[in-house]
Amino acid sequence: MRNILIIGAGKSCSYLIKYLLDNSQSEKLHITIGDLNVDNAKKLVGSHPNTDVIHLDVFNAKSRVAAVKKADIVVSMLPARFHIEVAKDCITYKKNMVTASYVSPEMQALDADAKANNLIFMNEIGVDPGVDHMSAMHVIDRIRDKGGKLILFESFTGGLVAPESDNNLWNYKFTWNPRNVVLAGQGGAAKFLQENQFKYIPYNRLFRRTEFLDVEGYGRFEGYANRDSLKYQEVYGLDHVKTLYRGTIRRVGFSRAWNAFVQLGMTDDSYTIDDSINMSYRDFVNSFLPYSPTDSVELKFRHALKIDQDDMVWDKFLELDIFNPKKMVELDKGTPAQILQKILMDSWTLSQQDKDMIVMYHKFGYELDGKKHQIDATMVTLGQDQTYTAMAKTVGLPVAIATLAILNGKIKTPGVQIPITKEVYTPILKELESYDVVFKEYEVPYLGYNPLSI
Amino acid sequence: MRNILIIGAGKSCSYLIKYLLDNSQSEKLHITIGDLNVDNAKKLVGSHPNTDVIHLDVFNAKSRVAAVKKADIVVSMLPARFHIEVAKDCITYKKNMVTASYVSPEMQALDADAKANNLIFMNEIGVDPGVDHMSAMHVIDRIRDKGGKLILFESFTGGLVAPESDNNLWNYKFTWNPRNVVLAGQGGAAKFLQENQFKYIPYNRLFRRTEFLDVEGYGRFEGYANRDSLKYQEVYGLDHVKTLYRGTIRRVGFSRAWNAFVQLGMTDDSYTIDDSINMSYRDFVNSFLPYSPTDSVELKFRHALKIDQDDMVWDKFLELDIFNPKKMVELDKGTPAQILQKILMDSWTLSQQDKDMIVMYHKFGYELDGKKHQIDATMVTLGQDQTYTAMAKTVGLPVAIATLAILNGKIKTPGVQIPITKEVYTPILKELESYDVVFKEYEVPYLGYNPLSI
Repeated sequence: MRNILIIGAGKSCSYLIKYLLDNSQSEKLHITIGDLNVDNAKKLVGSHPNTDVIHLDVFNAKSRVAAVKKADIVVSMLPARFHIEVAKDCITYKKNMVTASYVSPEMQALDADAKANNLIFMNEIGVDPGVDHMSAMHVIDRIRDKGGKLILFESFTGGLVAPESDNNLWNYKFTWNPRNVVLAGQGGAAKFLQENQFKYIPYNRLFRRTEFLDVEGYGRFEGYANRDSLKYQEVYGLDHVKTLYRGTIRRVGFSRAWNAFVQLGMTDDSYTIDDSINMSYRDFVNSFLPYSPTDSVELKFRHALKIDQDDMVWDKFLELDIFNPKKMVELDKGTPAQILQKILMDSWTLSQQDKDMIVMYHKFGYELDGKKHQIDATMVTLGQDQTYTAMAKTVGLPVAIATLAILNGKIKTPGVQIPITKEVYTPILKELESYDVVFKEYEVPYLGYNPLSI
Repeated sequence: MRNILIIGAGKSCSYLIKYLLDNSQSEKLHITIGDLNVDNAKKLVGSHPNTDVIHLDVFNAKSRVAAVKKADIVVSMLPARFHIEVAKDCITYKKNMVTASYVSPEMQALDADAKANNLIFMNEIGVDPGVDHMSAMHVIDRIRDKGGKLILFESFTGGLVAPESDNNLWNYKFTWNPRNVVLAGQGGAAKFLQENQFKYIPYNRLFRRTEFLDVEGYGRFEGYANRDSLKYQEVYGLDHVKTLYRGTIRRVGFSRAWNAFVQLGMTDDSYTIDDSINMSYRDFVNSFLPYSPTDSVELKFRHALKIDQDDMVWDKFLELDIFNPKKMVELDKGTPAQILQKILMDSWTLSQQDKDMIVMYHKFGYELDGKKHQIDATMVTLGQDQTYTAMAKTVGLPVAIATLAILNGKIKTPGVQIPITKEVYTPILKELESYDVVFKEYEVPYLGYNPLSI
């Protein structure tokens, strides 16, 4: 038996565990799942043989080391900041390791040690980062192999509600950490390249500089810029790229409405509202609007945001019931962002029968034989239910497949790495297709941002 | 002779030094001025007797201690973060101390030591903070003494260009640190009280939520909210106040135009633009606008900010020449804020003959005998030239007058303090009047924010 240790058994682990259990007989796998709270893990493994569920506190060095020592490979599904102690143990006890998180500077610093011990530390192998890396490099490498030169790369990902469960005016529900959705885009200007020009978008403009994306069979979406587009130039080796843009996908109209919260300061997480426990939703909204003894909160809101009487965006705010004077915020000394999140969770929490959806859209512009070309690649995959979500599938399956591939020696290049090499992405993308994670490619005219120059 | 040590002889010291020199014979004062750069100090003292100008590095403990030991009182005009070492020496060697800066937590921590040694550590005795404290408490105490209850306090201060030198469309020039002007309002939402309701304004709305202020003989100004209004509730003892608002004064129209820079992200100081050395002013503006192969930067700017063809605000931007493709930014890896500051300094730097102006506007609402009343107090004072500026006068004279009053035992209450007691503000305000720092008071109807309820 080969021993796999999975640390952390949260929402994203359903498919990861199912995949490994389904393969446990044929591949002779024993799976140990360690978490502070073992309930979710126990539910996921049921009465399956070849499994242990153990109580594991990652800050308790003794029990952590004991668990790592017994494993042949360690999968850390903890939040990113908790990986590093596990990673150091993996160096000490010579274990391979897999995470779905961004490579932290501390993780990167282990690269030489990992290589010296012939260990594979695979990171960023969830959905975003993960499936985005693999599917992008799959096309980029192909273009390069035939002599093409990449001049444009745009990539968008979104976690959304599936069309069949899409029944609110925002066309949005929380399919992942709601706090991250409320805070999205904060912390600095978005930076990207358009036709060789660096462009910068401050937070307060971010949700008004979207672009449209049409996905066959699913209609139109919109994308707003991520903060970190430029770093992909080095990661993907896009030396000559003129346009480089990464974004987040929402349904059309979401961003324009969301911008109202940004403009009024309702997404601010930098201070607390001392008397929030005594506030109604209406009071909360009113605290961002000028005092008036006569005018309604509704009219002040419309006036501040210049929302015309017949603008349908208004119905989105009514749907959230933000002007209700009776619903209480019920948070003591909450930040605006925390209070807004609470209000949104009333409306945007998935119900038991709701399904989620992951949408990905890449654009690759390139020059070949003196001509410009473009390939668009899109992927949409749906969840089955609230346990087997599209998010858990696209995060957990690449982790699981990579884990088994490392155990079986199919992935063998050592070091701290991300899935951008053919050795890694080719078998994983292939296997993901049988789970309905399929990229469709379209040859389209290269437009770039100079449509008239064609 | 009584020895006064002044550490730091920057822009704000002209009146401070002149006042002490003018009184040096009659009051038997010897003045030592220490600075890293002695040129400005030498120019200010000329050939006046009773003075020494010494090279002083505040981080050199030996020379700092030697200078402090010789003094009877120490005036620190250094930037606020440099006071603390001097203050500790003043405790050790039992010297009184005066600064124009906000009381830092480190300074406040010396309060018990100061009292134990019967030392006066007077702070916040410049213009803002300083003259604002004194002039406000002067009226607040008077209202209280006759049994009134404060329900509204609003206070605005602005450093502007004098009307006779006011010859640009922004009605603004840099009369103080330009960097602080570019960064003004950043770092968190503005918080204040209006009619017992807490109100919050995020940075991106700050310059669109101004209010008008009319000053007799000087016309109309506007005020935007400072971040820190609420702390004055405790400082001034305004327990029952319903409205509490502190703001910054500009000429009408400044804020609406300035908001364009805020909206586009041109005041951001959190990241650098790598290729700024190669940028023209036009390139800089364009980096905050979408790429277009055809549309002009001008039209993209108008479109992004919804500036109509016939909106006079446009001329303000043209006046700054921000669309010039030939003027280069000339900063290597500048932040947007640094680059914007450089562009503005082309237009907003005072010329030799320009004069500056300080404007202050307080509103005091109170209840007395069951009725509501309001007093507005305004002060405008002009500079003489570029050395004897209104800013140097309103910062330096209160410091100088307080220094002499402490030496002469007229201010005697020990401890780390700010000028909010009658003992301090009464003689200083009185003497300031002979320097044309005069508050005019107006009894006006109390309106608050409920004009219809009268």
